Amino acid sequence: MNDLKLNPLKKMEIIIEGAHQSFATDLLDRAGVKGYTIVGNLSGKGRGGFHEGHLMFNEEEVMVMIITAVPEALVAPILEGFTPFFNQHSGVVFVSDIQVSRLVKFTR
Amino acid sequence: MNDLKLNPLKKMEIIIEGAHQSFATDLLDRAGVKGYTIVGNLSGKGRGGFHEGHLMFNEEEVMVMIITAVPEALVAPILEGFTPFFNQHSGVVFVSDIQVSRLVKFTR
Amino acid sequence: MNDLKLNPLKKMEIIIEGAHQSFATDLLDRAGVKGYTIVGNLSGKGRGGFHEGHLMFNEEEVMVMIITAVPEALVAPILEGFTPFFNQHSGVVFVSDIQVSRLVKFTR
Repeated sequence: MNDLKLNPLKKMEIIIEGAHQSFATDLLDRAGVKGYTIVGNLSGKGRGGFHEGHLMFNEEEVMVMIITAVPEALVAPILEGFTPFFNQHSGVVFVSDIQVSRLVKFTR
Repeated sequence: MNDLKLNPLKKMEIIIEGAHQSFATDLLDRAGVKGYTIVGNLSGKGRGGFHEGHLMFNEEEVMVMIITAVPEALVAPILEGFTPFFNQHSGVVFVSDIQVSRLVKFTR
Repeated sequence: MNDLKLNPLKKMEIIIEGAHQSFATDLLDRAGVKGYTIVGNLSGKGRGGFHEGHLMFNEEEVMVMIITAVPEALVAPILEGFTPFFNQHSGVVFVSDIQVSRLVKFTR
């Protein structure tokens, strides 16, 4: 059954300050990523101390996680695009293997 | 140490419009899934354009991610169950390998 | 390019009641974990029935997911630390393989 075919892709989870969300999604858009999901209002603790996410009034300090699924060939260019950003701002990118039920949604 | 045994399962992350959350959880219930976690109020961009998640008043356009862990044998039946749904609605299912610390919670 | 080196780590996703968040993050801190991200206000269904997450006034029943990335050697000690807790409270830990773009953030 063709509809059930699972396609191996790379899942990227980009955790950054909410203030930089547009930078990240613009970068993904330019890289050819067609779909992503954003989990907002995260709390977190990193090198810079603790960031309380929910019930904050200053949206700019809230962390967000941008989840996307991309062909393996896109991982390196996307990470390269983020390198100058991460030299200045806190955040992290997780990369893992997933299988996706609807490939068409995530590639041009 | 028995308590620490990690059980290999498949993680399924089902990203759909919040309006269809009950359809998805009913499908999981009928498939024999005992536990799942729902991340609400997501933003996202897919083929249908951008959906702004948080602070929306119309709950029906908010995206949710339903996370569950299932034995490998359940993946195909669950994806089959979603096939007619995804022919009509936007969304995606990610499948990945995980190990779970408490198998009892996720199987009958 | 050194900046792009991806480091293989273990991702741990700890799903517990929000009331126990500090217990979990204290345990992670003591284990030497430097960074984690917390997704709050989750809904969920486990052995104990359905927990409605968002719009709840009683924060103590809300579920949270604590996401962290650790060297493989830390997985067993962390799970051991959680064992007495999970003998009394609901929750689950997912462990999976990931690659992380910035190792320094997650180890001492």
